[in-house]
Amino acid sequence: MDVDAYMAERIPLLDAAIEARFVSLVEAPERLPENLLGAMRHLLFPGGKRLRPVFALAAAEAIGGPARAALPLAVAVEMIHTYSLIHDDLPCMDDDLVRRGRPTVHVAFGEATAVLAGDALLTEAFAVLAAAQVAGSTEDAQARLYAVGRLAVAAGAQGLVGGQIDDLAFEADASPDAVDSTERRARIDADGTGRARLASIHARKTAALFQASIVGGAALAGAAPDQLSGLEGFGLDVGIGFQIADDVLDANSEEAASILRFQGVDDARSGAEVLLDRALDRIEGWGEAAEPLRALARFAVRRRR
Amino acid sequence: MDVDAYMAERIPLLDAAIEARFVSLVEAPERLPENLLGAMRHLLFPGGKRLRPVFALAAAEAIGGPARAALPLAVAVEMIHTYSLIHDDLPCMDDDLVRRGRPTVHVAFGEATAVLAGDALLTEAFAVLAAAQVAGSTEDAQARLYAVGRLAVAAGAQGLVGGQIDDLAFEADASPDAVDSTERRARIDADGTGRARLASIHARKTAALFQASIVGGAALAGAAPDQLSGLEGFGLDVGIGFQIADDVLDANSEEAASILRFQGVDDARSGAEVLLDRALDRIEGWGEAAEPLRALARFAVRRRR
Repeated sequence: MDVDAYMAERIPLLDAAIEARFVSLVEAPERLPENLLGAMRHLLFPGGKRLRPVFALAAAEAIGGPARAALPLAVAVEMIHTYSLIHDDLPCMDDDLVRRGRPTVHVAFGEATAVLAGDALLTEAFAVLAAAQVAGSTEDAQARLYAVGRLAVAAGAQGLVGGQIDDLAFEADASPDAVDSTERRARIDADGTGRARLASIHARKTAALFQASIVGGAALAGAAPDQLSGLEGFGLDVGIGFQIADDVLDANSEEAASILRFQGVDDARSGAEVLLDRALDRIEGWGEAAEPLRALARFAVRRRR
Repeated sequence: MDVDAYMAERIPLLDAAIEARFVSLVEAPERLPENLLGAMRHLLFPGGKRLRPVFALAAAEAIGGPARAALPLAVAVEMIHTYSLIHDDLPCMDDDLVRRGRPTVHVAFGEATAVLAGDALLTEAFAVLAAAQVAGSTEDAQARLYAVGRLAVAAGAQGLVGGQIDDLAFEADASPDAVDSTERRARIDADGTGRARLASIHARKTAALFQASIVGGAALAGAAPDQLSGLEGFGLDVGIGFQIADDVLDANSEEAASILRFQGVDDARSGAEVLLDRALDRIEGWGEAAEPLRALARFAVRRRR
C-alpha cells in the first residue's frame, strides 16, 4: 500500500470540501470581513500534511463505507487542528513567529484577528459537521450528532484545551528562567511525575483529535459499537505514536514537553513501535478495506518528515 | 405576566444544567486543570441576566413544548455568550479590566488561560448540545443537529465573530487617536455608510445569538417550519431592540459603535418600540403559551437596567 499515492488521491477531495465551505461563507448574505477570511485561510492553504482528516476518510473505508461519508468530519477536524495552531502560536502562548516557513497568523494579520480567526474556524467546524448533506436521513442525523459530540469532547476542556493548559504549565516549570527553576526542573525529572504529566498532555493535546477523527469518521460510515471501541484504542495509540515521531524529528528543538526529556531516541522509537503493533492488532482481520488505515498508521508513527 | 417571577423560576433550571455539565467535566477521567475550570466559571457564576438562555426556554413553551426541551441549547447559548465576553475583553481586543464589577478573566487568570477558557466554553457548548439526553429518539437527533448548525452559524464567521471583527474596525475608524482620524470619523458620520455598518455589526454581534436561542429553543420543542420562520424575524427584531436599549443605558460610555452616534435617545427608543411591535406581530395569535416570550421581548427592549 503506497501511502503517498493514497494521500495524493484523497487530499483533493478534502481540499475541495474545505473550499466549498468557504464559498458558502463568502456567498452568505452578510459580507465576510476580508481580513477574517484571509486569516482563516492562512494556514489552511497551503496546509500541512492533512494527516488527521485523511485518517477520518480511511476509517470510513476501513469499515466498508465510502470515504465521502466522513468528509464533513474530515473538514471539521482540519479546521479545529488549524484553529489550535493559530491560538497556540499567539504571543500569550508559545509566541511563535514562523510556522511552516511562513509568518504565523498573528504576525500576518494582528493578534485580535488571529484570536477571532481561530474562534471562527472552531465554530465553523461544527457548522460544517451539522450541515445536512445527505438530506433527510434520520440515521445520518444520529451519526452526525455522535460525531459532533465526540469531536467537541476531544477538542474541549477534557481534550485539546486542557492539554494545552497543562502543556503551558509544564513548559513554565521546565524553563531555566523560572523562579526556583533548578528545584522545579528537578521535580519534573527526578521521579515519575513529569513523565506521567507529559503522557497525559500528549494524550489530550495530540492523540484526542486523532481519535475523534478516526472514531467519528467510522461512525459517519455506519460503524458498529465494537468497531468504534476498537478504533478508540487504535486512535489513541497512533496519536501518541505520532507525537513520539514528532518529538524525535524535533530532537534539536528547545521544546521542554518532549518524550526525549525522559528517554533517548532509540528507546522512544522502540516505544512507538510497540504502540503501532498494538494499534494494528486492534484492527486485525478487518481485511483489505482497512489497508489504507494500516498504511497511514505506519506512516504516522515511523515518518521521518 | 411578571417577567421577574418568570425568570426567577426558570433561571435555577438553567443554572442546575450548567452545573451538571461542570460536574461531568470534573468527573471525567482526565483531571480538569484548576485554573481552566476557575476561568471558565468566573463569568458564569455569578452570571449576568441570563436573558439569552431564558429566551430559549420561553420559545420552547411558546410553541406548546416543555421548557426543558430547550435546556441543552440554553446552556450552550450561555456558554457561547460567556466565551464571547472573555475574548472581547482581551488586551488585543477591547482591553477591559472590569466586567460586572469584577476583574475580567484575563486579569484574574492571565491572558493565555483566558483565551483557552473562551475556547473551552465555545467547544463545550457544542458538546452539551450534542449529548443525548432524550436517549434514542431519532426526531430528537434531527432537531438537535439543526440546533447545532443554527447556533454555529450564529456564533461563527457570518455571525458573532464577523460582527466583532467589524466592530473593532469601526471603533478604530471612529477613534480620535487614529491616523487621519478627522477624515475617517467624518466618513462614518457624513453619509449613511456608518449607520449601515453599525446596523450590520449589531445584527451579527448581538441579534444573531438571540435569534439562534429563540429559533433553536423552539426547534428542540418540535416547532413547525412556519413557526421557526416567524421566530427568525422575532429574534432579529428583539435582538436589535435589546442592543438599542443597551446603547441607551450606556449613553455616557465612550463606545463609538452606538446607535446614539446617529440619533438621540428619544428617537432610539421610538425605533426600538417599532421593532418590538413588529416582533410581537410575528407571534400574534400564539395564545397564552407565548405570554412569557412576549413579556421577555418587552423587557429586553424597554429595560432600564
